[in-house]
Amino acid sequence: MNTQTAQRTTEISQVITPEELLAHWQGHRGLTRRVIEAFPEEQFFKFSIGGMRTFAEMTMELLAIAGPGLREIVSGKTSELKEHIEHGNKKAKLLELWDATTEEINRLWPQIKPKDFHKTIKTFGEYEGTVQSSILYFIDNEIHHRGQGYVYLRALGVEPPAFWER
Amino acid sequence: MNTQTAQRTTEISQVITPEELLAHWQGHRGLTRRVIEAFPEEQFFKFSIGGMRTFAEMTMELLAIAGPGLREIVSGKTSELKEHIEHGNKKAKLLELWDATTEEINRLWPQIKPKDFHKTIKTFGEYEGTVQSSILYFIDNEIHHRGQGYVYLRALGVEPPAFWER
Repeated sequence: MNTQTAQRTTEISQVITPEELLAHWQGHRGLTRRVIEAFPEEQFFKFSIGGMRTFAEMTMELLAIAGPGLREIVSGKTSELKEHIEHGNKKAKLLELWDATTEEINRLWPQIKPKDFHKTIKTFGEYEGTVQSSILYFIDNEIHHRGQGYVYLRALGVEPPAFWER
Repeated sequence: MNTQTAQRTTEISQVITPEELLAHWQGHRGLTRRVIEAFPEEQFFKFSIGGMRTFAEMTMELLAIAGPGLREIVSGKTSELKEHIEHGNKKAKLLELWDATTEEINRLWPQIKPKDFHKTIKTFGEYEGTVQSSILYFIDNEIHHRGQGYVYLRALGVEPPAFWER
């Protein structure tokens, strides 16, 4: 079997290609960015329901996971989960980090080779899985918290961006 | 290239295999089932925040999508999105349909061949995409609404099941 044939076999039989998974993730991250933007600044840092975290705190968790998590995946070096960011109650600060993470993800992504997606890893020294299950977890966790952000927005009388627009 | 070699190439270079995607979906569906169970029956059908739907209404949407959507994918026959179910305000009725859907998904899943995941389809005669993007949408939509269910539970003083347990 020559390399070209192998390559073609891989492409036509992929459930989802690496490029599609990246676009899927970034599509979700773009929507989450619009949810952050939709929050009135004060409520972004203050509002919560039922003793849950503010959307700012959830956003910091997402920032702590996405870039650092992918960095761990490509470098193999363990890091700690650092969810605290000095933001001075400014959404702009977190949006700036959001955009830097978007670029970092695009830059690091091609370093994951197709055969790497089933390597086992332990992200943040704690969460065992494969590369693919870890990345899906990052995405799912973002969708989960963003869904909570939608309820906060609705409770604040703010129309959230459409879920299906990526 | 013989079939066995091709098969092996496909397996080792898959980002996510069909079997893994099924397990991923069913893992999420199992968690959503526990969220439904966690709701006090009355509040499941009544409680909402900010003018949003009740978790019962969201559950009916999820039931309207999962089984019927996968049936469309494997049969190629378009159906309408039917979100209304006669439930008589009984969670047991929706849980019964949930479990029937779980079995139906397991039964239909092997009919999707690896090469089918990139076929284009229009689910419910409206939503254009590929088989993989449609299935991911079904899953993401469930995570999104379940995240909202978590806020409802917290607002009701009920501890939701752990997000990471599948």
